Amino acid sequence: ETANVEGEHHAELGCMCTTTTSGIHPRNIQNLKVFGAGPHCSNVEVIATLKNGKEICLDPNAPVIKKIVQKILEGDESAA
Amino acid sequence: ETANVEGEHHAELGCMCTTTTSGIHPRNIQNLKVFGAGPHCSNVEVIATLKNGKEICLDPNAPVIKKIVQKILEGDESAA
Repeated sequence: ETANVEGEHHAELGCMCTTTTSGIHPRNIQNLKVFGAGPHCSNVEVIATLKNGKEICLDPNAPVIKKIVQKILEGDESAA
Repeated sequence: ETANVEGEHHAELGCMCTTTTSGIHPRNIQNLKVFGAGPHCSNVEVIATLKNGKEICLDPNAPVIKKIVQKILEGDESAA
Protein backbone atom coordinates (compact mmCIF):
# COMPACT_ATOMS: atom_id res chain seq x y z
CA GLU A 1 0.00 0.00 0.00
CA THR A 2 1.19 3.56 -0.45
CA ALA A 3 2.06 5.76 2.52
CA ASN A 4 0.22 8.77 1.14
CA VAL A 5 -0.72 11.86 3.09
CA GLU A 6 -4.28 12.65 4.10
CA GLY A 7 -4.58 16.28 2.99
CA GLU A 8 -2.92 19.31 4.49
CA HIS A 9 -1.89 19.41 8.16
CA HIS A 10 -4.47 21.51 10.01
CA ALA A 11 -4.64 21.44 13.78
CA GLU A 12 -8.21 20.25 13.81
CA LEU A 13 -7.72 17.55 11.16
CA GLY A 14 -5.80 15.13 13.33
CA CYS A 15 -3.09 12.80 12.04
CA MET A 16 -2.11 12.98 8.38
CA CYS A 17 -0.35 9.65 8.03
CA THR A 18 -2.36 6.43 8.19
CA THR A 19 0.46 4.26 6.90
CA THR A 20 4.19 4.95 6.80
CA THR A 21 7.17 3.52 4.95
CA SER A 22 10.88 3.42 5.63
CA GLY A 23 11.86 2.37 2.12
CA ILE A 24 13.15 5.53 0.51
CA HIS A 25 16.40 6.85 -0.94
CA PRO A 26 17.60 10.25 0.36
CA ARG A 27 18.53 11.22 -3.19
CA ASN A 28 14.80 11.40 -4.05
CA ILE A 29 13.88 13.67 -1.15
CA GLN A 30 13.41 17.37 -1.82
CA ASN A 31 12.32 18.27 1.70
CA LEU A 32 11.14 16.77 4.94
CA LYS A 33 8.49 17.97 7.37
CA VAL A 34 8.63 16.65 10.93
CA PHE A 35 5.49 17.28 12.98
CA GLY A 36 5.85 16.84 16.72
CA ALA A 37 3.11 14.97 18.57
CA GLY A 38 0.43 17.37 19.79
CA PRO A 39 -3.24 17.86 20.62
CA HIS A 40 -4.19 17.27 16.99
CA CYS A 41 -2.24 13.99 16.61
CA SER A 42 -0.49 11.91 19.26
CA ASN A 43 2.07 10.56 16.78
CA VAL A 44 5.21 12.20 15.50
CA GLU A 45 4.72 12.44 11.72
CA VAL A 46 7.44 12.70 9.07
CA ILE A 47 6.34 13.70 5.56
CA ALA A 48 8.80 13.71 2.69
CA THR A 49 8.20 15.71 -0.47
CA LEU A 50 9.98 13.86 -3.24
CA LYS A 51 11.73 15.48 -6.17
CA ASN A 52 8.82 14.30 -8.35
CA GLY A 53 6.48 16.34 -6.16
CA LYS A 54 4.85 13.34 -4.48
CA GLU A 55 4.40 13.40 -0.68
CA ILE A 56 4.86 10.25 1.39
CA CYS A 57 4.76 9.45 5.10
CA LEU A 58 7.94 8.05 6.63
CA ASP A 59 8.22 5.97 9.81
CA PRO A 60 9.81 8.22 12.48
CA ASN A 61 10.73 5.17 14.58
CA ALA A 62 12.71 3.42 11.84
CA PRO A 63 16.48 3.81 12.43
CA VAL A 64 17.06 4.20 8.68
CA ILE A 65 14.70 7.20 8.63
CA LYS A 66 16.51 8.84 11.55
CA LYS A 67 19.75 8.32 9.60
CA ILE A 68 18.24 9.78 6.42
CA VAL A 69 17.04 12.87 8.32
CA GLN A 70 20.60 13.40 9.61
CA LYS A 71 22.03 12.87 6.11
CA ILE A 72 19.73 15.51 4.67
CA LEU A 73 20.62 17.88 7.52
CA GLU A 74 24.26 17.36 6.61
CA GLY A 75 23.52 17.96 2.94
CA ASP A 76 24.82 14.46 2.15
CA GLU A 77 22.48 12.66 -0.30
CA SER A 78 24.73 9.68 -0.97
CA ALA A 79 23.51 6.13 -0.19
CA ALA A 80 21.84 5.86 3.23
CA GLU B 1 19.01 40.00 14.63
CA THR B 2 16.12 37.61 14.11
CA ALA B 3 16.43 34.49 12.00
CA ASN B 4 13.21 35.09 10.17
CA VAL B 5 12.16 33.40 6.96
CA GLU B 6 12.08 35.21 3.62
CA GLY B 7 8.64 34.26 2.32
CA GLU B 8 7.52 30.86 1.15
CA HIS B 9 9.93 28.31 -0.31
CA HIS B 10 9.45 28.34 -4.08
CA ALA B 11 11.98 26.74 -6.36
CA GLU B 12 12.69 29.96 -8.20
CA LEU B 13 12.98 32.13 -5.06
CA GLY B 14 16.31 30.79 -3.89
CA CYS B 15 17.31 30.50 -0.24
CA MET B 16 14.78 31.43 2.43
CA CYS B 17 17.11 31.85 5.38
CA THR B 18 19.50 34.78 5.47
CA THR B 19 20.40 34.33 9.13
CA THR B 20 20.00 31.28 11.34
CA THR B 21 19.96 30.60 15.05
CA SER B 22 20.67 27.56 17.19
CA GLY B 23 19.14 29.02 20.35
CA ILE B 24 15.80 27.31 20.64
CA HIS B 25 14.02 24.96 23.02
CA PRO B 26 12.41 21.83 21.48
CA ARG B 27 9.35 22.37 23.67
CA ASN B 28 8.46 25.45 21.61
CA ILE B 29 8.67 23.69 18.25
CA GLN B 30 5.45 22.63 16.57
CA ASN B 31 7.07 21.33 13.39
CA LEU B 32 10.29 21.40 11.44
CA LYS B 33 10.90 21.65 7.70
CA VAL B 34 14.24 20.47 6.37
CA PHE B 35 15.01 21.54 2.81
CA GLY B 36 17.83 19.72 1.10
CA ALA B 37 20.34 21.77 -0.90
CA GLY B 38 19.23 22.06 -4.52
CA PRO B 39 19.24 24.17 -7.68
CA HIS B 40 17.22 26.89 -5.95
CA CYS B 41 19.50 27.15 -2.87
CA SER B 42 22.90 25.58 -2.24
CA ASN B 43 22.36 25.48 1.53
CA VAL B 44 20.44 22.96 3.57
CA GLU B 45 17.73 25.00 5.31
CA VAL B 46 15.88 24.11 8.53
CA ILE B 47 12.77 26.12 9.33
CA ALA B 48 10.95 25.64 12.63
CA THR B 49 7.33 26.64 13.10
CA LEU B 50 6.95 27.50 16.75
CA LYS B 51 3.87 26.81 18.85
CA ASN B 52 3.16 30.57 18.73
CA GLY B 53 2.99 30.32 14.93
CA LYS B 54 6.27 32.15 14.30
CA GLU B 55 8.73 30.66 11.80
CA ILE B 56 12.48 30.82 12.39
CA CYS B 57 15.54 29.52 10.56
CA LEU B 58 17.76 27.09 12.46
CA ASP B 59 21.43 26.35 11.81
CA PRO B 60 21.61 22.85 10.26
CA ASN B 61 25.33 22.63 11.11
CA ALA B 62 24.90 23.26 14.84
CA PRO B 63 25.19 19.99 16.83
CA VAL B 64 22.40 21.16 19.17
CA ILE B 65 20.03 21.52 16.21
CA LYS B 66 20.86 18.01 14.97
CA LYS B 67 20.09 16.77 18.49
CA ILE B 68 16.81 18.70 18.62
CA VAL B 69 15.72 17.24 15.27
CA GLN B 70 16.36 13.73 16.64
CA LYS B 71 14.47 14.57 19.86
CA ILE B 72 11.44 15.72 17.91
CA LEU B 73 11.63 12.60 15.74
CA GLU B 74 11.58 10.57 18.94
CA GLY B 75 8.65 12.56 20.28
CA ASP B 76 10.81 13.63 23.26
CA GLU B 77 10.42 17.37 23.96
CA SER B 78 12.31 17.45 27.25
CA ALA B 79 15.43 19.65 27.63
CA ALA B 80 17.80 19.42 24.67
